[in-house]
This record gives sequence, C-alpha cells and structure tokens, in this order.
Amino acid sequence: MTMVATLPTVEVLAAQWRATRDLSVALVASLSDADASAQSMPDASPAKWHLAHTSWFFETFILDGLPGYRRFDDRFGHLFNSYYESVGPRIARHHRGLITRPSLDDVLAYRAHVDAALERHWEALTPEALALVELGINHEQQHQELLLTDILDLFAANPIEPALFPATSIAAIVTPGWTAHAGGIARIGHTGNQFAFDCETPAHDVLLRPFALANGLVNNGDWADFIADGGYKTPSLWLSDGWGWVQREGIAAPLRWRHGQDGWTSFTLAGRRPIDPAAPVTHISFYEADAFASWAGARLPTEAEWEVAAAGTDPFTGNQLDHAGPLAPRGGTSPFGDCWQWTASAFLPYPGFRPAAGAVGEYNGKFMNGQMVLKGASCATPRGSSRASVRNFFYPHQRWQFTGLRLAKDA
Amino acid sequence: MTMVATLPTVEVLAAQWRATRDLSVALVASLSDADASAQSMPDASPAKWHLAHTSWFFETFILDGLPGYRRFDDRFGHLFNSYYESVGPRIARHHRGLITRPSLDDVLAYRAHVDAALERHWEALTPEALALVELGINHEQQHQELLLTDILDLFAANPIEPALFPATSIAAIVTPGWTAHAGGIARIGHTGNQFAFDCETPAHDVLLRPFALANGLVNNGDWADFIADGGYKTPSLWLSDGWGWVQREGIAAPLRWRHGQDGWTSFTLAGRRPIDPAAPVTHISFYEADAFASWAGARLPTEAEWEVAAAGTDPFTGNQLDHAGPLAPRGGTSPFGDCWQWTASAFLPYPGFRPAAGAVGEYNGKFMNGQMVLKGASCATPRGSSRASVRNFFYPHQRWQFTGLRLAKDA
Amino acid sequence: MTMVATLPTVEVLAAQWRATRDLSVALVASLSDADASAQSMPDASPAKWHLAHTSWFFETFILDGLPGYRRFDDRFGHLFNSYYESVGPRIARHHRGLITRPSLDDVLAYRAHVDAALERHWEALTPEALALVELGINHEQQHQELLLTDILDLFAANPIEPALFPATSIAAIVTPGWTAHAGGIARIGHTGNQFAFDCETPAHDVLLRPFALANGLVNNGDWADFIADGGYKTPSLWLSDGWGWVQREGIAAPLRWRHGQDGWTSFTLAGRRPIDPAAPVTHISFYEADAFASWAGARLPTEAEWEVAAAGTDPFTGNQLDHAGPLAPRGGTSPFGDCWQWTASAFLPYPGFRPAAGAVGEYNGKFMNGQMVLKGASCATPRGSSRASVRNFFYPHQRWQFTGLRLAKDA
Amino acid sequence: MTMVATLPTVEVLAAQWRATRDLSVALVASLSDADASAQSMPDASPAKWHLAHTSWFFETFILDGLPGYRRFDDRFGHLFNSYYESVGPRIARHHRGLITRPSLDDVLAYRAHVDAALERHWEALTPEALALVELGINHEQQHQELLLTDILDLFAANPIEPALFPATSIAAIVTPGWTAHAGGIARIGHTGNQFAFDCETPAHDVLLRPFALANGLVNNGDWADFIADGGYKTPSLWLSDGWGWVQREGIAAPLRWRHGQDGWTSFTLAGRRPIDPAAPVTHISFYEADAFASWAGARLPTEAEWEVAAAGTDPFTGNQLDHAGPLAPRGGTSPFGDCWQWTASAFLPYPGFRPAAGAVGEYNGKFMNGQMVLKGASCATPRGSSRASVRNFFYPHQRWQFTGLRLAKDA
Repeated sequence: MTMVATLPTVEVLAAQWRATRDLSVALVASLSDADASAQSMPDASPAKWHLAHTSWFFETFILDGLPGYRRFDDRFGHLFNSYYESVGPRIARHHRGLITRPSLDDVLAYRAHVDAALERHWEALTPEALALVELGINHEQQHQELLLTDILDLFAANPIEPALFPATSIAAIVTPGWTAHAGGIARIGHTGNQFAFDCETPAHDVLLRPFALANGLVNNGDWADFIADGGYKTPSLWLSDGWGWVQREGIAAPLRWRHGQDGWTSFTLAGRRPIDPAAPVTHISFYEADAFASWAGARLPTEAEWEVAAAGTDPFTGNQLDHAGPLAPRGGTSPFGDCWQWTASAFLPYPGFRPAAGAVGEYNGKFMNGQMVLKGASCATPRGSSRASVRNFFYPHQRWQFTGLRLAKDA
Repeated sequence: MTMVATLPTVEVLAAQWRATRDLSVALVASLSDADASAQSMPDASPAKWHLAHTSWFFETFILDGLPGYRRFDDRFGHLFNSYYESVGPRIARHHRGLITRPSLDDVLAYRAHVDAALERHWEALTPEALALVELGINHEQQHQELLLTDILDLFAANPIEPALFPATSIAAIVTPGWTAHAGGIARIGHTGNQFAFDCETPAHDVLLRPFALANGLVNNGDWADFIADGGYKTPSLWLSDGWGWVQREGIAAPLRWRHGQDGWTSFTLAGRRPIDPAAPVTHISFYEADAFASWAGARLPTEAEWEVAAAGTDPFTGNQLDHAGPLAPRGGTSPFGDCWQWTASAFLPYPGFRPAAGAVGEYNGKFMNGQMVLKGASCATPRGSSRASVRNFFYPHQRWQFTGLRLAKDA
Repeated sequence: MTMVATLPTVEVLAAQWRATRDLSVALVASLSDADASAQSMPDASPAKWHLAHTSWFFETFILDGLPGYRRFDDRFGHLFNSYYESVGPRIARHHRGLITRPSLDDVLAYRAHVDAALERHWEALTPEALALVELGINHEQQHQELLLTDILDLFAANPIEPALFPATSIAAIVTPGWTAHAGGIARIGHTGNQFAFDCETPAHDVLLRPFALANGLVNNGDWADFIADGGYKTPSLWLSDGWGWVQREGIAAPLRWRHGQDGWTSFTLAGRRPIDPAAPVTHISFYEADAFASWAGARLPTEAEWEVAAAGTDPFTGNQLDHAGPLAPRGGTSPFGDCWQWTASAFLPYPGFRPAAGAVGEYNGKFMNGQMVLKGASCATPRGSSRASVRNFFYPHQRWQFTGLRLAKDA
Repeated sequence: MTMVATLPTVEVLAAQWRATRDLSVALVASLSDADASAQSMPDASPAKWHLAHTSWFFETFILDGLPGYRRFDDRFGHLFNSYYESVGPRIARHHRGLITRPSLDDVLAYRAHVDAALERHWEALTPEALALVELGINHEQQHQELLLTDILDLFAANPIEPALFPATSIAAIVTPGWTAHAGGIARIGHTGNQFAFDCETPAHDVLLRPFALANGLVNNGDWADFIADGGYKTPSLWLSDGWGWVQREGIAAPLRWRHGQDGWTSFTLAGRRPIDPAAPVTHISFYEADAFASWAGARLPTEAEWEVAAAGTDPFTGNQLDHAGPLAPRGGTSPFGDCWQWTASAFLPYPGFRPAAGAVGEYNGKFMNGQMVLKGASCATPRGSSRASVRNFFYPHQRWQFTGLRLAKDA
C-alpha cells in the first residue's frame, strides 16, 4: 500500500471503482460457466476466481468492518483468499479449478452484492477505507490482466483453439534506432501524491552511467532471425539456469509459437494466427530475453534506466486496454503498452522500504526474492493503472503474460 | 469383445440401448456446465467427457461405417478418444479438464445427433455392427459408474462439499458367518451365449482347494475397529508396497473419512455424513483390503473362489444402480451389489485368451499388468451389466471407486 | 524359511557355508575400497553392503543368541539391516553409497569376526540355528548374484567402462524347436526335504492345458531382428504400462546396448563388447519380454508350465556360477543357467501359503504384490542354489539382472 | 578472469601455486579411497573430483598449449570438466560419485604429473599463461573450501558420524553494538592491480544512504532464541519462497542441528558437538538469514554496504584457513573469516561488466541469475584468497557452506 498524501475525491474514486468493476464483468461476457471455472496450470487461476477474489478483497478489508454488513456467503473466504496467510486458510492454489460451485452466475451475484453494499456506504468510509478502495481498484486492474492471460492459456490448451475476441489491427511502424541518456544521479520510485504500490517506494536517488535504449521493442521478425540463427541451440548465449530450462523443457520458440508449412503461427486471444513480423514479440521468459540480448550484442536495461528514460512520457499513452474487445501487441513509440519489458534488475526492496502493517502488508514485500522486474504495461493492462514507477515482477521462466523486451547498451 | 453365439433381437437390443443412453443423461441432470467439465485428478474424467466418449464409441465403430453418416464435429475424435492408440491421437489424459468447449449442451446435442443417426439405421446394421452396439452398451454402463465416482471425487475436493443426490436408507442386516465350499475342479469364465468382455474368456477349468467365504462384506464398524487397533501403524500387516504407500501418502483411514468430535464421517454422493457402522466399508485400496484381512486372521478370496461361490446367484440381485437417484452401500445377502470386492488375483489373461482383432481389440488385454481383479458389482453399477464372470480391475493403490472386501479362509 | 524335514549333517552344512563365505570374498578380490562403497542407483547396493549385510544376518539371527558372543560393532545393525522392519531402524536405502566408513577392509574384518565366531560354535547350534545357517547360505547366494549385477551397473555408469573379469567363451548352439507337454494335473512347489524358500511352499496341484516350450532362449540375434522390425515403436505389441515406460524412459534396446558403426555392443562384466547373436539376450524387462513374445506370435510361459517342463532336469546343470571368474550368458540345453526367464505369472502366494513367524518371516510374503515370477537361474547364480521350484521375482520394469526369456505357446 | 595490470613475479606466483597445490593434498590426508569418491548430494562433489578438476584446469588451459606436453589420461577431460560447455562433454553432475576409478591414488598421481610438468615450464610461460596460473590458484582455493564442506556433508550422512579433524577452540568475545557509516557516493568492485574474478569488475560508484552494521556476527545463542520464539513457525517473518521451502522441507533449525536431552548439537568437522552459544551461527540459508533479520527488527546489508564498511580492514585478518587442521567458526572483530555473510543483493552483473572471451569466460557471468551475494570469508577459506570485493554467491536455499549473517539497519 502506498504512502498516499492525497486521495481523489469520493466522486472520482467511486467513478473509477465503477468503471473497474464493470470492466471485469465485461471481460467475461462471452465465457461459459465451464470456461470461467477451469484452471490451465498452477500459475493461472480460473476467471471466476479472479472475479470473486477481487470482490473478496473489498468485502474483507472494507465491508466486514462496516456496521450491518452481511456477508454473501461465509464459505467464500476459504475459497477466494489468495496468499494472505494472516487472513486464514485457503484452498490449495492448484485446486482452484475444482471449485465448480459456486457457479459463474453465483459469483456474479456475489459481485453485485458487494457492489451494492459499497454503493450504500460511500459517505461512511473513513480515509483509511477510501485508501483501501483505491488499493482494491488497482488490485482488480492487476487481476484483469491476469484474467485475460489465464483465459489465453486455457484456450491454448484446448485442441479446438477457441477465440475470446476477433482479430485486431496490424503492427505500427517504429523508426529503428537508439535514444541516448546521460546518466548521473536520478530519482526513481513513486514521488507524486497519487496511488502507488508499496514496492514503488520510497523514492530514492540512483547513480547511472550513460546508456542508450532502443526506440522500439524487439519484434517477431527479429525473433524469427534469432531462432533461425540457432539462438535456442547455442549455450554460450544463455544464463546457466536458462540453458537448463531450455534443455529440460525442450524450449525452441516463444510460448505457443508453432512452425507449419506457411511459417510461424502463434496462439492469440483471436485464436491461432500467423505471426506479424513487425509486431512486438511477446510470451518470452526472462531467460529468452537475456539470451536474445546477448545474441544481439546488447543487454537488458536496468529498471532504473528504463524508468529514467520513460519519465517524461504520459503513462496513458500506448497500446493498453480500454475496453473488453480485441487486443494484441502492435508496437508504437510509447514506452508504455504492448508488452511488459523484462529488465536486468531483480525484484528487491528499495532502500528504506517498509511493508505496510497488517494483512495488506503481505502485499508485495514477501515476493522480493527470485523474481525479475518488468516495466511498462501491456495491451492487456487497463489504461490508467500504469506509472513509470510500477514494478511488475515474475520468475525468470514465466512467460504466459504479455512479456517482451527492449534492448539497452552502454553509451 | 466377446465370442457371442447369440445376440438379442434387434428390438431387445434397441430397448437396452435406449435405456442406457437415457440413464447417462439422467445422471447429469443436476450438473452445471462447470461441474461436467472439471477433472479432479488424472485417474478421473469430466462427466462431459464420459458423455461424449461413449457417443464417440458408437460414432467411430458403427456410424462412420454407414453410408451417408455425417459426423457431428470432426474435431471430437481428438477430444474424446480414450486409449485406442490405433484410432489416432488424443488429448493428454490429465488435460481433459481443460476442454471447456464444447459445452455440456454441445455434448448433449452430440449425443442426440448420434442417437438419431443410430435410430435411423437399426435395420441396416450387420450382425457385426449389432455386436458392437451391445459392446457399446456395456462400455457405456462402465462409464456410468465411473461418471458417478468421478463426480463424487470432484465434489469431495470442493470445500463447499456439494451433494449430487439426497441421502438414502440405512444398512441391511446380514447374519454373520461363513459359507464353506468343497473345492475341486470347477469351470470359470464366460460360458453362456450372452455378452461378455474379452477378458472373461475363454471359460476354463480351475482346481480349487476347500475354502469358505464370509456371508457379509466387511463393514464400517469393523474398519473403525481396525483403525482403533493400530491397523494403519503396524507394518507387519502390510505388503511392502502397501506400507510404502501408507507412509508416503500419510494414509490413516478410507478415502475421505474424517474424524471429528462426533466420530467418523465420510464424504458421499449425499455430502458429508456420519459413517453407518453396519454398512459395507468402501473406498479402500487393495493394500488396505489385504492388510485388513491379515489383521482379521483371514485372507482375500481368489477370483476363482469368488466366482464359483457366486455361480448360483442371479446377478440382477443386490444393491445396484436402477435409476438416477440416491445410492449408497447398505449391505445384503447377494454377492452382487454394494461394492466391488478386491480379490487376491492379479488381472492376467486366462489360458488361451486372445484379444479381438482391430481397434476394439485394444480393449482389455493391454491392461493385464500390475492390476488386481475385483468381483461383484457396486451400488453404482447399472443393474443388468453384472455377471459372475465379470473381471473388474484397478491398481492396488486406487480407491476412488466403490471398493470393499469380503473375507475368505481355507476350509 | 522352508518347512525342512531333513537338514544336511553339520559337516556338510559347514562345508557349504565355508564355500559360500569364501566365494563372496573372492568375488570382490579386484574391487577397490571405492568400488565396493558406491551405489549406482536405489535398486542396487554397494558390494561392501552385500558383504556386511550377509554377515549381519548370521550375527543377528544366530550369533546374538549364543552365550558369550560379542558383536563386532554395535552400530552395524543400523547400517546393514535391509528390510527387516521388526529388527529395528535402518539407513535409507538410497543412501547406502554414503557409508564410506567402515571401509572394505573393516567389512572384511567384520566377516572374519563373524566367521570365526560361527566356527567356534558348530557343536552348540540347535536344529533351529542350523536351519538358519542353511537359510543364511541361500540368502548369501542370492546376494552374490546381486553383488555381481550391482557391480556391473556401477561400472557401466563410469565413462571409463572398467571390466571386472576378462571376456569369456562364445555361445553354444541349441537346436531350434519346441518341446510339447501334455498338460493335466501336475504338482508344483517345493516337495523334497531339502532347503527351499517359504514362497515355494506349499506344494500343490495345478491344472494345465497342453503347451509347448521353446528349446532355446531368445538370443541377441532374434532381439536385433525385433528392434529392426520396429518392435520398440509399435504400441500394439506392448502392455499399456509397458508402452508408457518405453515412451517415458526413451527405451529402444536392452539395457546398455549401444549402436555404433560396427553394430550393437553391450556393456558386460568384461567391459563393452559386440553382442554375440547366438548368445541369449539378457537385461530386458518383463515389458520387453512380453512385447517380444507378442511380436513372435507366441507368449511367455506360466511359472507352472516352466516348472513342470523343467521337473526332470538336474538343477546343477547349465551355465551357472562356479567361481569368481569370467561369466556371461552363452546358451545351452538346460532350462537352468544363462539367464532368469520371465514368466507370465504374478508373484502371489501359493494356496495355503503361510509366512514363517518372527523377523525371518518378513522374508518373501510381503513382496507378493506387483512383481512377476522368473524361473531358472543365471550365469551369476551360484551353482547349487537352483531348484525347479525357485521363484525369483522383480518388478516388470527392472532389468539390471541377467533376465531373458523362453517362448511358450498353446499346443 | 580479471583485468590484471600487474602480475606477481614468477617466483612469487610459483610459491603461491606450490602452497596451494600442497594444501589440497594435505586436506585429504586422512580420507580413504571411498571417502574421496562418494558424493553426498548433487550440489556436492567427491573430494577426488575436486583434486582432479583443479588439476584438469591447469592441464587444459595451460599445459595442453605447451610443446611436448603429454596428457596423463585422455579420458580425464570427460570425467573432470565441470561446467565449461565449450570444452566438451562431461559426466552428469549427480553421477560424480560413481567414478570409483580412477582411484584416489590415481588422482594423486595425476596431480603429481601435472605439477611436475608445470614445474618444468615456468620460464616458458607467457604472461597470458601466468595470468591463467594465478586464476588457477584462486580457482583451486575455492575448491578447497568446497572440498571441506562437501566432506562435512558426506560425513554427516553417515550414521557413524566420522570426524575429519579434532575439535577446536572456543568462541571469541565480540563487543556488541553497531558501527555507523555515512553513506554517499562510494566506489566498490576491484580496483587494485592484483588478482580478482571477473564478476568483481568493473569498479564503479554507488550511492549509499547512511547505514549501520552490527559489530559481530549473529551467534548460535541468538539463533536458539529465534527458534524458541517460534521463528520457524511464523509466516510473516519469511519471504514467500522461503516459507514454501520451510514447509516443504520441514525446516526447523540450521542444517544438521539436532535437539536432544542436553540441548542443541550440530554436526561439525570434529563430529557431533554441542553448539557454542557465543560462536557465529553457520549453515543457514538466505531465507533463514532474511527471516532472522526481520525477527530482529533489522535487515541484511547490501553488498555495497558491506564492502564499503570492510574497505579499511586487511583481508588477511580473521578466522580463515591456514593449514589442514581443526577449524570452526569462533567469532571475532574482523569482517573476514568465520562465515560467509548473506547480503540483500542478488548476484547480477556490475555496470559495464563483460565476461572474458573463450572458455574461461564461462567463469561467472552465466551464474548471474537467481543467486544471492555473500561477502567476507569463512573458517574454510584459504587465507590469502579474500578481498573486500569478492562476491561469493549461492541459491537462497543452499546452506551446506559455512554461511551466516551480520545485521544491518538504516542509520
């Protein structure tokens, strides 16, 4: 949770909250009860679970403390708690797909119950509760992105290869080249008085050497060249753990790429499609991003370099999620959007970092081990939830998110 | 497939077929799309898969050979083939729960399509095709039992613990005691001219020593005594593999038994219920059955002993499945019904056994390794599908079926 | 332990015992301390462990009961107990290779201590103790065979590929063909008044149909034909569990066969050598034996068929182990020797079987699950320890012993 | 490999090299052939392997390039290469314990062969070769520490619990308290013209906030308090991955601690001994170190903080390895010695880092993922191999090294 100096007005906050709550429901409009209940792998969760868990958050941290609130169903805490050890027991993560009841309709009714209760209490909410509403909005926006990538993973596992949305437009053209930065002492981390997650604080100075960032993201055409040049078969390009992963898992291309008579295809939210060489590559792991950078004679940027370079750009720009409809990476000039960009930085606490007290304090600090920071935002990130200071993080082998890369080099 | 000398008339066969097809649909009447799509473990399958696979059987082995038949959906072969290596590729067994589409409604439409097609062709069916219809009926009856036990396993994994049916009646009383048999040369295996699975043939003579079988099944009260006496903590009672399984899996009671303030409960198709001490124990593995028999100073019967003892009893008797409604083991005097009874016999080919040719020939022979024979029938076995010669088989650790035991001893 | 009516005289028993004890030491004459301490896989044990465990047997079951006996080292019970749950704790099986101390010399001193103590007490031994000596001899003979196959497995894992013995002679020629047997009621199991293991009893009648057994063992040339004909790539030849094993483990030839420019080689006790087409194939699993038999249009014999057919042959005949020196399968006319022959029979208790009471009673009964019977004897079986009634047993995937097959068919 | 400006004279280098080569042999003086051949776990290697691999390094990178050099045994490359993908194939790491041949004596002869060859060529060595000698010395010093900790792990797995050395002296007393540091811009990394590993370069400026470091290491008494206070049972103290590790592995104390009637003991190079409350705790993982720091209301230092604080101290001070004899952590005032100290820093490349070209360039860069930096030196680190800039690194769960911690806090 952030150290917030200034909250939006209740009216503004309520409007943001309604828009977020509505978007979640819109995203699942075409899902069946079964689609919403299945879990494709332990890292993923059922869509229904995302819908319920984000409601459980408002119920547990806000509504339960209000006089007269009556829970929708006392058993839902056990079902829809995620990793909050201090709030009680929870179902084993890899068994979430067995919760066929409550149904999708039941979960939508749960959402309506929670929403109606909160609508009745705006005036009664303390500043602390309003700060938790804002946290809950941002939390739900994160789950919206996960919901989309989890559905993508589920549909990819079905031989029928269903599509969630129709196909979308072609790739934008970005002028190749590099933009240099002078380095020196710079301030990173969250500084404004608007919302941020705890891990973005405290803002602090860093010392940077001169560097340059590529103007565009690495694209599918670049990646096909990497494959054709034996990138996945050359151990010297890879980190030791990455090479072990390639060998053990038989990795030879980005997730869900398949090579056929007409070249490479990948599985997308619009079903299986030929890759667009000009669109940003996505669904690659940190290991792959690092190996590609070595092959290209470059490196990944640090999180500080990325943040300093993006500091002047409006985070509302770029290819991000505006509504429940067709989406895909297509490239552009904003550092935000299209895909999350792996950095060379491990996800570790900023100097002086302190987790918030209480259950919400479990939020990010306990994940500060073994994961790498990603910056930017993706085509599945709800517009408005991005900031230059956002620190997304995943394990180096994970790649079911819209993850890609931007090259860096010493200047 | 059996060596059938005499098939029922087409009218009789069609009536059996319609009853079987209807029962499958009736069994899922209260399931949601999500209930029908989830898979609780690799050994189990989604209800939807059972519904579709049994239809795929009729489509593939009968309808595809008829002039003018048009498949419901060409992609279903890949989705709903089970283990027939010779009929083409199939989805990995443990991924069956990811097939959220086709939906339950789609699968019911598939069933209707297959049924209508078969109804149009009764007159055109060759004797070979009619024999395959009979095989398909028996095949579907097996899947009806699996469907029920798989739903039971799924519901047990849900902390909400849903019930499929209301609770049913109390246990019957069986006079304790033993019935002796003289031994000698006896004939076992399928001898009549009605349907049997390939593994029940050929009928052949066996040489038996005098033996006795218990009149009743081991019941829950007996089992609670076994637990109380340290049965699960005494290695000398167990086979070496069984003891390893107990230690590794932390086994201390039948599947889904739980001990609370009011004693033992178990999870049933009617939800969680106190155990009935007089009802037959079920959901035990072969390892447990064997250890219990050792503890009781007895042994398990061989399959030949069981079959010889049951030879004079009408297999339509006993507590078996008549319709889609409440069911539970309750005990009785018939060797058939309540639960499948573990024997001391490995599932191996009978002398002179030959698998049928072609794809259907993959049916049972290839499973003749590492599994143990169970005899009888359970409360979830469709009445009419039982025979004294039936050889059910599972691995010694498996216990999600209605599996129990009857004691034997040397006379 | 057997139901022994007549023991050899003490003199004869003592001579057998000395010969057995000497052979064990002779077998390790060329092993280093490190060779004798390493464990190649969990199924295998270090040579040192075999030497010590067989001595622990005499110490625990005989010497500990004698007045004035002083143990060599009280800690050895923990180190060198095998699977006797009732005799106390033991080191985890897969950690046996970490017992670098006591050294090989220490273990040889332990053997000498045990041997000297027993030599001092022959006159004092009760008939029960003498029966345990006889059991201990047979137990040690089993471990001699394991010691040889475990060393073979260890040396095979070393890229240097050491040899234990020089190479030995070429294969004998066996006239191809089949020998028919009439079937009927026959008696199998141990009947004489000499030593046998508990699992060979009680002798009992079995009912056999007419059958025929191949005169010779399947040889390496036959096996190369099976490979060349796609035997390892044809699922219809395999049991379902066997096919899963082939796929999962990437099995494509007998253990340690390798194909090079000059054809197939295999790793033997004389190092890597070209296969001899006329010598019996060995180091195959039950799955492979069963698939080969299917491919050959035959089947494996049952244990009863094999035993009845071998009844008239002196078990001292055939290619068995006479001394510590070159050994290899070479073929011949005796049913005994060269290799253990997989049967179609599961290792289950004979009718009326009762394990012996006490710790020694753990001997065989608890393994009567999941394993298949092998008959005969191998080139690593100490001559004199064979009987037609011996029931060797291994899991269907195991193949580091000298395991082969003889075909059978219905007559 | 370092960017070395100035090498020692050949005389000095040769003397260092001889001392290092002699120490390795002295360390194994009391090991048997079996002791030296066994591998206790995949992370560890046999002592024999360390002896041979460090010789293989000199042979491969120096001697093979000299005219007239004849290899001791061409097969040793396959056996004793470690992770140099570019130098050819190697035996699977977890199979190193199966290399019972060559024997310890053979390996000592190999060392003598390599040593004699190098002694003959000092004058012929190019500056590049001399730099490789220096690298080889430092490489061998690292393996000396691993050899000791691997033997410790092996002996701990033997129920007999052998000792390598006699017990050693009691703990030193350190005045408790903190030393403050002002922060600001400071230079870290290797700056002198003496040897350093590639990962210590390039030296670069970092920006530090004011901080304080504890004067002493956390000791066993502190750790016993942590245990008694429920440290291992309090999820809020732990990183998420750490808590998963504690639960999955059943971790409840430092490695090899055992609680008996007389309190805690641990297994040491002098066998099992009572813990000394005043001695530094060792054999803890990063997860444990981090949880302890949370419990103590402090944190781990970053690698930069540690290095800046240690900058003024002679790295020859402290409790480090001087000869093959008794050793144990005992505490003191030097930042060097006793145990490696976990930092809060991930092992990542320094700004501007470039791996050396060629095979030796595989040295450290490919491990820059998923591991944490440790600073200082341990009681098993050969004195003379320490520097403030040394970056040791292990995975966060590993704890078979002498690993401990020093607390830090913001000033």
